[in-house]
Amino acid sequence: MAVRFADRMKWLKASEIREILKLTQNPEVISFAGGLPAAELFPVKEILAASAEVLEQQGCQALQYSTTEGCLDLRNAIAERMNRFRGTRVSGDRILITCGSQQGLDLTGKLFLDPGDAILCESPTYIGAINAFRAYQPRFVQVPTDDDGMIPDELERLVRETERVKLLYVVPDFQNPSGRTWSLERRRGLLDVAERHEIPIIEDSPYAEVCFEGEAPPSILSLDERGLVVYLSTFSKIFCPGLRIGWLAAEQSLFERYVLAKQGADLHTSSLSQHLIRTYMARHDMDANVERIRRTYRRRRDVMVEAIAREFPEGIRHTRPRGGLFLWVELPAGADAKEILVRALDENVAFVPGGSFFPNGGGENTMRLNYSAMPEERIVEGIRRLGRVLRETLAVSGGLARRSES
Amino acid sequence: MAVRFADRMKWLKASEIREILKLTQNPEVISFAGGLPAAELFPVKEILAASAEVLEQQGCQALQYSTTEGCLDLRNAIAERMNRFRGTRVSGDRILITCGSQQGLDLTGKLFLDPGDAILCESPTYIGAINAFRAYQPRFVQVPTDDDGMIPDELERLVRETERVKLLYVVPDFQNPSGRTWSLERRRGLLDVAERHEIPIIEDSPYAEVCFEGEAPPSILSLDERGLVVYLSTFSKIFCPGLRIGWLAAEQSLFERYVLAKQGADLHTSSLSQHLIRTYMARHDMDANVERIRRTYRRRRDVMVEAIAREFPEGIRHTRPRGGLFLWVELPAGADAKEILVRALDENVAFVPGGSFFPNGGGENTMRLNYSAMPEERIVEGIRRLGRVLRETLAVSGGLARRSES
Repeated sequence: MAVRFADRMKWLKASEIREILKLTQNPEVISFAGGLPAAELFPVKEILAASAEVLEQQGCQALQYSTTEGCLDLRNAIAERMNRFRGTRVSGDRILITCGSQQGLDLTGKLFLDPGDAILCESPTYIGAINAFRAYQPRFVQVPTDDDGMIPDELERLVRETERVKLLYVVPDFQNPSGRTWSLERRRGLLDVAERHEIPIIEDSPYAEVCFEGEAPPSILSLDERGLVVYLSTFSKIFCPGLRIGWLAAEQSLFERYVLAKQGADLHTSSLSQHLIRTYMARHDMDANVERIRRTYRRRRDVMVEAIAREFPEGIRHTRPRGGLFLWVELPAGADAKEILVRALDENVAFVPGGSFFPNGGGENTMRLNYSAMPEERIVEGIRRLGRVLRETLAVSGGLARRSES
Repeated sequence: MAVRFADRMKWLKASEIREILKLTQNPEVISFAGGLPAAELFPVKEILAASAEVLEQQGCQALQYSTTEGCLDLRNAIAERMNRFRGTRVSGDRILITCGSQQGLDLTGKLFLDPGDAILCESPTYIGAINAFRAYQPRFVQVPTDDDGMIPDELERLVRETERVKLLYVVPDFQNPSGRTWSLERRRGLLDVAERHEIPIIEDSPYAEVCFEGEAPPSILSLDERGLVVYLSTFSKIFCPGLRIGWLAAEQSLFERYVLAKQGADLHTSSLSQHLIRTYMARHDMDANVERIRRTYRRRRDVMVEAIAREFPEGIRHTRPRGGLFLWVELPAGADAKEILVRALDENVAFVPGGSFFPNGGGENTMRLNYSAMPEERIVEGIRRLGRVLRETLAVSGGLARRSES
């Protein structure tokens, strides 16, 4: 067939992670590859009760078309929660309910990006954002990033040197994939750059509440006086992802454009899902639910970090995330995480090679490990197997020798 | 703020219908403006039972992330139903679950449209499609259309004369807004043009099952041997819209690209909504549910048609739809439906001026009336009020005099 597609379709590729996940359907495989929350923590009984209440008392409304903006009660409840935990002062009428925060990313591309526009992002950055933005054919410019966030001098230099910078995209809290968290100082610095150059910041923060040690620093939105920050988040990591309820918060003129874009994209998000979450929040203790998630993931992170210390060969760096779902591993320069994955799958263990998180290439010697989805003994066993694969592969490739030189 | 938006944002406008709907929140207003299904027909009890079953037996799965393509059981059930009612031979692995069929339209724009590409559509055409496609900056070319569909000679001429025709977009069954249905011959003719010029057809068919007199003609997809037809539909009109479950069917290479585009747009559609509908279909009688909708809407259509005959001044043409939710009114040339709406709102009755359904302007003397959302006595009263407004306005504007000359 000679059907002609839009230019942008040249840039859309299947997510490597999703392809790997297909290989890990086999229950024998210990998978650190996905980003699934622990399903055993979903408050299924309470959701069942909320579902009965919603359908019995507001069934027709919860099953009918509703507004693009979303259910106002839910939007108010989200604003209240953000103001309590993230230091913001938003009201429900600036919250747009989206189909997961992934839709917030897609709508962001729609609002801002013409082909050839530049997005400045962290290095590494979130693969879902790369995939969403790619449909709008931008150039990605990765800003050198350390454990505290983007490096200020490099950020300033790249903003000045790069033509048509349209967006600054960051995941400042317990980042996917690196597990890193921006310091308060770096947050202020980013905002300062955004203000001087009048560039919107997309603050993608699905993990902020999943913190293990104290609280995440204040959101960048909470520091913003000029309405330049669009804040994206979701119930996927603090409740459950299958309802597909995310949201974004933006100042009025941005908010109105997001509503327009969403209206064309899907009219509105599932009314029933919105009513379910709203009713759950009114009748049950969302904070206690989040606390249960924190405790479980904190233990799993500890178990993974301890197992890595025992099982991985020396010379491998990794993060020790203070929250979120992911840990980032840097192998010695020259190591190829994709080759290692092939070997690891032979041992029935999976992870995501880190190269996927670098839109312009690079990072071949990195890997992302998820610790939220697996019971502790499987984490221990999976890291044991992965350690064996790493020892064998790196010894053969000479990676260990090179590593010790650096 | 000097934030720069993408070029496409110049073309996105708030849906006039949604703005009108805001005025009709007042329960005093008899609104023929929306396109809401009758909420009193939603099988709330059965959905409650399905919800309990899903959450009790597959709660973790229904609340977890799932595949972009959608739940395979539901996709198979949809394929079976399409093959039974629409004469197709599709399998579930070519069905993609979307967030309403509105998302199918947005994804279609993403797949096919570069700025300046042409879409050939009916005249009038569906406003939701206009809004979805506008984000991709196409040119709309409206093909002259009569009660049987696009007029073949005009279609052929426009396909030849128009540069960069990328898509043929049609709503062949009980169209929104006109209520018209394409004849079988015109369907074959459209497909013939599509094949000779290798242009995909987007067959948008949310209303086909809501038929009042016999069945809708075979779907264009069922006549397609070359894989050129993308079929969009939804549970919104035969079940309930608040779950936001629509779908599309396409041949493999198109299907795969739609999956990619959806992955970037929102990862996947609500797992719980999908499980609910699948379980409802397994335990209850969807056909009987559709039959109840048909009977109710058929009566409402009859009541509206009879009331129009009694109440409207002469010289006003209207369709008598054999299915769907809408009836189309053509006032005498020179009449302005927007002015009439202002007067009608004074009388607490609302409709959508037909101009919204003409992307390049025109149709100022047309109006769309919805009959699905209102009990019969309200339809009678609303048409009585509207008839009074029409008699007054058209007499004053000289519309009636002009009409009798034509």
